[in-house]
Amino acid sequence: MSGLFITLEGPEGAGKTTMIEKLAEDLADDGVEVLATREPGGIGIAEKIRTIILDKEHTMMDPRTEALLYAAARRQHLTEKVLPALREGKVVLCDRFIDSSLAYQGYARGLGIDEVYAINEFAIQGAMPDATLYFDIDPEIGLKRIARNAGREVNRLDLEKVGFHHKVRKGYHLLLQRFPDRIILIDASAPVDSVYQKAKKVIDGRLVQAGILNKD
Amino acid sequence: MSGLFITLEGPEGAGKTTMIEKLAEDLADDGVEVLATREPGGIGIAEKIRTIILDKEHTMMDPRTEALLYAAARRQHLTEKVLPALREGKVVLCDRFIDSSLAYQGYARGLGIDEVYAINEFAIQGAMPDATLYFDIDPEIGLKRIARNAGREVNRLDLEKVGFHHKVRKGYHLLLQRFPDRIILIDASAPVDSVYQKAKKVIDGRLVQAGILNKD
Repeated sequence: MSGLFITLEGPEGAGKTTMIEKLAEDLADDGVEVLATREPGGIGIAEKIRTIILDKEHTMMDPRTEALLYAAARRQHLTEKVLPALREGKVVLCDRFIDSSLAYQGYARGLGIDEVYAINEFAIQGAMPDATLYFDIDPEIGLKRIARNAGREVNRLDLEKVGFHHKVRKGYHLLLQRFPDRIILIDASAPVDSVYQKAKKVIDGRLVQAGILNKD
Repeated sequence: MSGLFITLEGPEGAGKTTMIEKLAEDLADDGVEVLATREPGGIGIAEKIRTIILDKEHTMMDPRTEALLYAAARRQHLTEKVLPALREGKVVLCDRFIDSSLAYQGYARGLGIDEVYAINEFAIQGAMPDATLYFDIDPEIGLKRIARNAGREVNRLDLEKVGFHHKVRKGYHLLLQRFPDRIILIDASAPVDSVYQKAKKVIDGRLVQAGILNKD
């Protein structure tokens, strides 16, 4: 593997989508070959698996079935899209990866971080990210951002979700303790520009370290 | 769990389908409540997953994606169909279960028995079969049976598969060593009636042991 595999993690409302777009643009301007992606990422088999996961008629879906399907879609997206790009020396920016399954299914849904890790280990076969930017934000603030972007107030349904998102955040914080070298916490409650500058600096640092970017 | 969970394993051509039909019929005649099934078994989510696995357009499907999809379909079939029947005290006869994944994907396809076991452990969460009848047959003999049933001679394509089925058999034999109490080998090269009588006696023994069948 000659490229660099960077994942972005965090709840909705943390600004990941904005970040990844701008990062891909600015890195390309720096002359870096970038692939920005997210599962299922246009990979036929992974898209079909995602369709099963998201089908609203599937109210009977067991949480473990869902976790296995996410791992299956992850495997296919990884082998068809991420690994080939890394082999070509590209920098891959991936919006959500293994840590989302660990924080959401493993911790917040209660399946167990170790158990969800086991099936994902099978799926990724050692292809862990070189670095993971975790955009940390208080769920109440993230929620207000999402509602504001949708042009509305925070509603009752949103509030019900807050408890769940507190658990997700706790899950990410446990992962930070488990993978202190790989996961970098970025305070996403700061103004967007300042959050972006921090993210860009962390990535630039890794690119210089990997010899992909010059130090000029 | 008050019922009894019995799985039938072995290659195609070992006569499993004939066995399971006759077993279900005769057990019902004995007054035993039976569910005969096989994955995906009419379970909507499991059927959709199986459709992805079997789609001939999916030539890019990675063997690990496939193994995860089998585990996902297994989970859903188990929770929606097998476990409820066991809770009702039924005897569940299931044509293929975890051992098929271990023998075919784990051993014959080379993914590793332990690794495939790990994802299936996640899927079944301790719901291992109470007993497994493994119908053992030399792949050459099984192959001739399949060809004969299809009204034709053994062809070149069949012969190419023999090597693979020898591996599958080796995989099952490794599982026999690993689970000597659970898996019972039945020589399937004997005449069908004699194979059936042996299978029926093994199951009757377990039913008596479990207090489901009287000893008269």
